Amino acid sequence: MKRVQVAIIGAGPSGLMLGHILHRAGIDTIILENRSRDYVLARVRAGLLEQGTVDLLRENGLAGRLDKEALIHHGMALAFDGERHRIDLSGLAGGKVVTIYGQTEVTKDLMDARDASGAAIVYEAQGVTLHDFDGTSPRVTYTKDGVTHEVACDIIAGCDGYHGVSRASVPKGAITTYERVYPFGWLGILAEVPPVDHELIYANSPRGFALCTMRSNTRSRYYVQCPLDDKVEAWSDDRFWDELRRRVDAPTAEAIVTGPSFEKSIAPLRSFVAEPLRFGRLFLVGDSAHIVPPTGAKGLNLAMSDVRYLSEALLAFFQDGSTASLDTYSARALARIWKAVRFSWSMTTMLHRFPEQTAFDQRMQEADLAYLVSSKAAMTSLAENYVGLPV
Amino acid sequence: MKRVQVAIIGAGPSGLMLGHILHRAGIDTIILENRSRDYVLARVRAGLLEQGTVDLLRENGLAGRLDKEALIHHGMALAFDGERHRIDLSGLAGGKVVTIYGQTEVTKDLMDARDASGAAIVYEAQGVTLHDFDGTSPRVTYTKDGVTHEVACDIIAGCDGYHGVSRASVPKGAITTYERVYPFGWLGILAEVPPVDHELIYANSPRGFALCTMRSNTRSRYYVQCPLDDKVEAWSDDRFWDELRRRVDAPTAEAIVTGPSFEKSIAPLRSFVAEPLRFGRLFLVGDSAHIVPPTGAKGLNLAMSDVRYLSEALLAFFQDGSTASLDTYSARALARIWKAVRFSWSMTTMLHRFPEQTAFDQRMQEADLAYLVSSKAAMTSLAENYVGLPV
Repeated sequence: MKRVQVAIIGAGPSGLMLGHILHRAGIDTIILENRSRDYVLARVRAGLLEQGTVDLLRENGLAGRLDKEALIHHGMALAFDGERHRIDLSGLAGGKVVTIYGQTEVTKDLMDARDASGAAIVYEAQGVTLHDFDGTSPRVTYTKDGVTHEVACDIIAGCDGYHGVSRASVPKGAITTYERVYPFGWLGILAEVPPVDHELIYANSPRGFALCTMRSNTRSRYYVQCPLDDKVEAWSDDRFWDELRRRVDAPTAEAIVTGPSFEKSIAPLRSFVAEPLRFGRLFLVGDSAHIVPPTGAKGLNLAMSDVRYLSEALLAFFQDGSTASLDTYSARALARIWKAVRFSWSMTTMLHRFPEQTAFDQRMQEADLAYLVSSKAAMTSLAENYVGLPV
Repeated sequence: MKRVQVAIIGAGPSGLMLGHILHRAGIDTIILENRSRDYVLARVRAGLLEQGTVDLLRENGLAGRLDKEALIHHGMALAFDGERHRIDLSGLAGGKVVTIYGQTEVTKDLMDARDASGAAIVYEAQGVTLHDFDGTSPRVTYTKDGVTHEVACDIIAGCDGYHGVSRASVPKGAITTYERVYPFGWLGILAEVPPVDHELIYANSPRGFALCTMRSNTRSRYYVQCPLDDKVEAWSDDRFWDELRRRVDAPTAEAIVTGPSFEKSIAPLRSFVAEPLRFGRLFLVGDSAHIVPPTGAKGLNLAMSDVRYLSEALLAFFQDGSTASLDTYSARALARIWKAVRFSWSMTTMLHRFPEQTAFDQRMQEADLAYLVSSKAAMTSLAENYVGLPV
């Protein structure tokens, strides 16, 4: 039976990042991923990093390519009622910026680092099962190429996302969940065209929400709010571009460069939190414990602050034998998680059209936006959340 | 047939204030009120004045008693999760303060000024009816002591509140209304006891909202959120004081001085806006066009900013023959009204328990409060709204 100090479930950014930090500290780990390496790398996700996320990558020697390729944004814009209003993020938030660098790129850099380290990572691990994490000698079993393996460990880190086995392994009575499912989806496309603006534009229009974002100066990412039961097949590129243009202010619409999409998908929007994040020797990290709607791009960033807290606690545990930080991990991470869940929910509420909203609700949304761009205090509040609250 | 320049419907604070300003400018007015003077004076209403309201009273020579008797507040407090957090209103909002002086006192000062001026005011005017305000020669008819009177005028000012005849006289198709009725009421008492604190305390507790406020240093006003179908008779003073103490933090609860109440009532909470505010020669002012829930005490203050806008427009009309300001009154007043309606709604939403709220909604409310008291930007936004946005 193989033995490691930490068994990490999931090779997304949070599992890879945690593995990297622990390996650098001399802590023995294995990462078990039920998908293939190519599958994980092909997942299209967010692309906006808070300063704290960039700091974590840089502190751990992972910012080499990011520093060359990423785009730095000092602001963003809100478009509504026919006008576009720039929010001076760095001016309002004490110089902090956001960094545009796709989650796919972060994952690739982390995978390359894992490969270079020689530390254990198993893709296509089938039937991953968590055992005995309520005691001091947890184990993980899995099957690879028809052979069953067993790994003994001190700690299990559940970094395997919303649908993963980690949270599902916890007895129902030990966990409390909070959820809001939004009554719409995001239809998103990627296209090899220059972005309409060098910064992001969030639009609230009578036809619904739209977002103009990017992966690089030559690759654009656009979204429009759509009914949850819409099918991608019903959305030709032409229909998408027409709809997008109708949801932004006229100068923005005229400036949009269109071209064939090479990715098109519809994603649901959900807010979800499971409490606590610790069950004996099992610790939940990132999407395995919490999901936010993509509005404001907090998902990857929250996973990274979880990793920061848990890695600090695990270093104290393995290096000094201290359990104090492990004992406070859940409360510490959740304090930040709830604030980000609040912000993602409030931005989603402010920017989308809700099927059930009354005429009064609609006017309150319009008044929220009108007040926001009229008030330095309100814009500062938006900015400090958008660039990321302190870790 | 009597003839005036402006017929004012309603002798509440907005009608009296408008009448006072116009009379000082030499504009002939009549005020028609369907209730008795004693009835109007006995109505218990809010008691918190924004700086702009105090300024309007002072500019018009009406602040003599207020300057002697009113209390000046530099802050207020939010109580939740067992703690009380002071919000430094004047520190955050550029030195602005709020003034505690009952609406009843404002009304009395205005009535005394009207009496001293000798300008016409008719109480217990029955069957007030508005005529021909779609032309240039409107009229108002009413009955007093069995005699029918007719008043010709240039302008009708509808200052007669939510249930008044003014808004009801507008053809249905000419008016758009927006409404939210909240699923709870406020049970309020007045008692001749010193207030628990020299500033207001707004409390959110698992048992519902509570508010500790005052009329003076010896007269307290307390409220607790209650079901809409509760009866005042079911609330003995003892039950009220017990419930109030259970909704605030422990040090506040211990400091509450109790005593017999001399007023006790249950009020519903509503947000309501009618658009536009002008119909030919009829102009709506204050509660006749908009209602806010009492959270944040914006009702009287909004009525006073309407009066400021309309009085400026009427002076330009009668003194210079200019209709430009009359033409923009509705849009100008509504811009401020919607922001105050938004603030009252958001404070109400943040501080009350809603029967229909999910566990997720409840956590978002708690996260809102926790974020608010952690962020100078968010507290500044609250403060600038609470002391009153610019007129």
